[in-house]
Amino acid sequence: MHNKLFLTYLFVVSALLANGQDEKLDIATIQKIRAEGLQRSQVMETAFFLTDVNGPRLQGPGFMKAANWAKDKLSGWGLQNSRLESWGEWGKGWAVERCYLSMTAPYYKSIIAVPRAWSGSTNKLQSAEVLYISSSDTTALESYRNKLKNKVILIEQSYKIPPTFKADAARFTDEELQKMANEAAPSQRADSDTTFRSRIRAMRTQNAFNQKMRKLAKQEGAVGMLSTTQNSIDGTLFVSGDYANAALGATPDDLADVNIAVEDYLTLCRLMKAGVPVKLDVDVKTKFFTDDTKGYNVLAEIPGTDPKLKDEVVMLGAHFDSWHAATGATDNAAGSAVMMEAVRILKTIGVSPRRTIRIALWSGEEQGLHGSKNYVNNHLVDKSNKLTKEGDNIAAYFNVDNGTGKIRGVYLQGNQAVGPIFAQWLKPFNDLGATTITPRNTGGTDHLSFDRIGLPGFQFIQDPIEYSTRTHHTNMDTYDHLQPDDLKQAATVVASFVYNAAMRDEKLPRKAATAQAAR
Amino acid sequence: MHNKLFLTYLFVVSALLANGQDEKLDIATIQKIRAEGLQRSQVMETAFFLTDVNGPRLQGPGFMKAANWAKDKLSGWGLQNSRLESWGEWGKGWAVERCYLSMTAPYYKSIIAVPRAWSGSTNKLQSAEVLYISSSDTTALESYRNKLKNKVILIEQSYKIPPTFKADAARFTDEELQKMANEAAPSQRADSDTTFRSRIRAMRTQNAFNQKMRKLAKQEGAVGMLSTTQNSIDGTLFVSGDYANAALGATPDDLADVNIAVEDYLTLCRLMKAGVPVKLDVDVKTKFFTDDTKGYNVLAEIPGTDPKLKDEVVMLGAHFDSWHAATGATDNAAGSAVMMEAVRILKTIGVSPRRTIRIALWSGEEQGLHGSKNYVNNHLVDKSNKLTKEGDNIAAYFNVDNGTGKIRGVYLQGNQAVGPIFAQWLKPFNDLGATTITPRNTGGTDHLSFDRIGLPGFQFIQDPIEYSTRTHHTNMDTYDHLQPDDLKQAATVVASFVYNAAMRDEKLPRKAATAQAAR
Repeated sequence: MHNKLFLTYLFVVSALLANGQDEKLDIATIQKIRAEGLQRSQVMETAFFLTDVNGPRLQGPGFMKAANWAKDKLSGWGLQNSRLESWGEWGKGWAVERCYLSMTAPYYKSIIAVPRAWSGSTNKLQSAEVLYISSSDTTALESYRNKLKNKVILIEQSYKIPPTFKADAARFTDEELQKMANEAAPSQRADSDTTFRSRIRAMRTQNAFNQKMRKLAKQEGAVGMLSTTQNSIDGTLFVSGDYANAALGATPDDLADVNIAVEDYLTLCRLMKAGVPVKLDVDVKTKFFTDDTKGYNVLAEIPGTDPKLKDEVVMLGAHFDSWHAATGATDNAAGSAVMMEAVRILKTIGVSPRRTIRIALWSGEEQGLHGSKNYVNNHLVDKSNKLTKEGDNIAAYFNVDNGTGKIRGVYLQGNQAVGPIFAQWLKPFNDLGATTITPRNTGGTDHLSFDRIGLPGFQFIQDPIEYSTRTHHTNMDTYDHLQPDDLKQAATVVASFVYNAAMRDEKLPRKAATAQAAR
Repeated sequence: MHNKLFLTYLFVVSALLANGQDEKLDIATIQKIRAEGLQRSQVMETAFFLTDVNGPRLQGPGFMKAANWAKDKLSGWGLQNSRLESWGEWGKGWAVERCYLSMTAPYYKSIIAVPRAWSGSTNKLQSAEVLYISSSDTTALESYRNKLKNKVILIEQSYKIPPTFKADAARFTDEELQKMANEAAPSQRADSDTTFRSRIRAMRTQNAFNQKMRKLAKQEGAVGMLSTTQNSIDGTLFVSGDYANAALGATPDDLADVNIAVEDYLTLCRLMKAGVPVKLDVDVKTKFFTDDTKGYNVLAEIPGTDPKLKDEVVMLGAHFDSWHAATGATDNAAGSAVMMEAVRILKTIGVSPRRTIRIALWSGEEQGLHGSKNYVNNHLVDKSNKLTKEGDNIAAYFNVDNGTGKIRGVYLQGNQAVGPIFAQWLKPFNDLGATTITPRNTGGTDHLSFDRIGLPGFQFIQDPIEYSTRTHHTNMDTYDHLQPDDLKQAATVVASFVYNAAMRDEKLPRKAATAQAAR
């Protein structure tokens, strides 16, 4: 407790809860973890396979190819029982096989384009005129009946694109971290869950009109429709797909539904508005896969060695699936590679954990945490949503899914009792910038599946780098946007947290029983 | 002289040269210019035509289409003698008619791609393997003989792409402007010209290997070659073309030569280096035009009305040509629209200038200031490089070619005597951020053609905005990256400068005779 900064945080945490006890840290092992993780890292080799070599890991074949590789890799590192476990029915797989879009009149202009997930095809290269629907007309779609045949649909947008006077990349400042540390405990159980649900809801609302339009357009024989987002600037496209269950309902002959760069989109809008005839060449070919419609998680273990504790499990996980516009490097090859590296470090230095350590690489997270939610439902709770014996044996769950930035601390998720423990666990990594304990809830990813049933599930605070500006769900989420030193640090911190949780006399404290009421 | 900031600058300028006299400014007309330029601007309508409607204005048909439009527009505004004037032989025109590039193995990945200017074609969609040439082999191209047939050539690059912790966009700070104002007069006549020449030289050196490679590749029947630049990040591609006279030598059956996003390029490099077989689909179709191989400038006038001064000419100009990857919005539809708007303002408010005002929209600037250099050689100097009568009649030349940012002042180009004059001319625009007189030379554009023959040619200081990061020679140099308020301000300031120069009793002071020695 020599670190001044650490004392500050400890003070904050102690003010919240006064029962913090000294953690018995195995400093010798932590030193080995640091040496292996920082000096002999393989995290970038793992990330290279998950991104450049594998390609997108969208739920379906892209995911499965990488999942099988990970399963074998984990076995190769000496983990036990490495496996793909089905969590239930998902739907069709989907992949892009071709996407070409250009303007051919009034002049030739190639357009940066990515089909939205589960988009249909144009069947061949189609030359088509644009049908421009001014946004004021969008409530009266019927007025376009009989006008859509052989057209590409463009709905008016009038976004302004300001120059970016703020840097794309950032790290948390000391002040920002201090502010997070000083926050009051969240009053709600899971505002994060609420946030995530409202995100899903907004996505559905946003897509409702598109769905209606697609249906009409398909009926009439339109060639396709275009969309964009306001932040898809400079060639960086934010692309996902229609709402959560799209894969179940989508069919190969659905309308081609293509995201394009906002500059290109607005050019088309301005030309149409000015009465300049626009023609496009469109060639979109997508493929649907029905050979295996189940969803799978990758699981593997380092078995516990303490006869009294080996049935208890410390879990670490990250969602392994990605969107399709790039290779999901920061979302979430980064977190997956960090978690794989963490168990590689632990196996390599030869730990004998008291509890069992289990890594989980989830699927279907992007469409609503499907992999982790179903894992929890299949294993950890009964039909009345009470913890099973297996559920009660979960000592802790750690998640990484906030991009490529290094770990700056942990979100307590309102679990105040854990604060003094994590503050001590962070201490050996204060020198690497990991210092902050915040009571804050954070959401949008798989620790929520554990949190909502009252298990101690945590997500780390990570430096944002370019996550929200350039990589999160974009066509630029590629290997080159990963930060090697940050990922090495993250794997090292996670390995140590997992090891501490596996060696501790008690499981991590849980939040009050209220949490178990909700499902 | 009430403005504190202005007094500062005036002090600096006065310290350099003590003979500054009071300029007789026509404040009533300047107020009209401000009102027309700031409140009834048409600069964005002009820019819309030059970019969205016209497309790229690369030397050749793209330029000619816009040039004819501008000629008519200037006539429509009431300028006299609006014309396209040939400056001599240029070479073939060139345009892209199709560009599709994707990786098809190990998985499908669409690639952001733009052919380099004067690239050849692939003739049809070609599926090809990649031939990876490690950078250490580039001096020994011969070792690849007989290996290039049906291959796409990829030369090793190992760029690192750091996250951008610095904002893409910027404006000059007061401190930066003050520093520029305080600089000593440049010791050399035209370091800027030197800079430009060294840029051309570097471009040639950089392209020498590519030329050699292209020749070998063409001989052996390669499909094409790929290139990138280190700053082509996030989907923003920097693309120009091989050295100045490429258009003369290039032929339609030349090798396809395609720039791609650096992330895609590095992915291909890593995969090839790791021994993962890569396949590409490439379909590049370009067209060469030989119907008119001459180069043209657009010229038009507001005739002078003072019998003694009307043969003297105040010129304002901007290069009108662009590169081809986008629509050259900031380089240089911005400057062109500003200059057109400046003369529209003057015509609209009904000035009767003493001297003739001539607007010039140059071509071939991107390949070496061809339009302005040839104009100067055809009109303003004789074969021994001495000013002709027509040349001696040029009272001033003003140029805008630094993007979309508003005017912050003027580069004196070492012409110290002009400092006190411009300081007074800027005063009515101090409130719009135009305050700074710097002795500094600036280069890379058409004022150099005037400066090098001893005529007072000036380029304005402009806020950089995203010029070097996102728009200058990129596929993102589009209408949406223009800043309307900045362009309105710039046109207003230029209109006033041109008017002042046309009304002044004397022509603007010229630099010492040394300048005329060089050609």
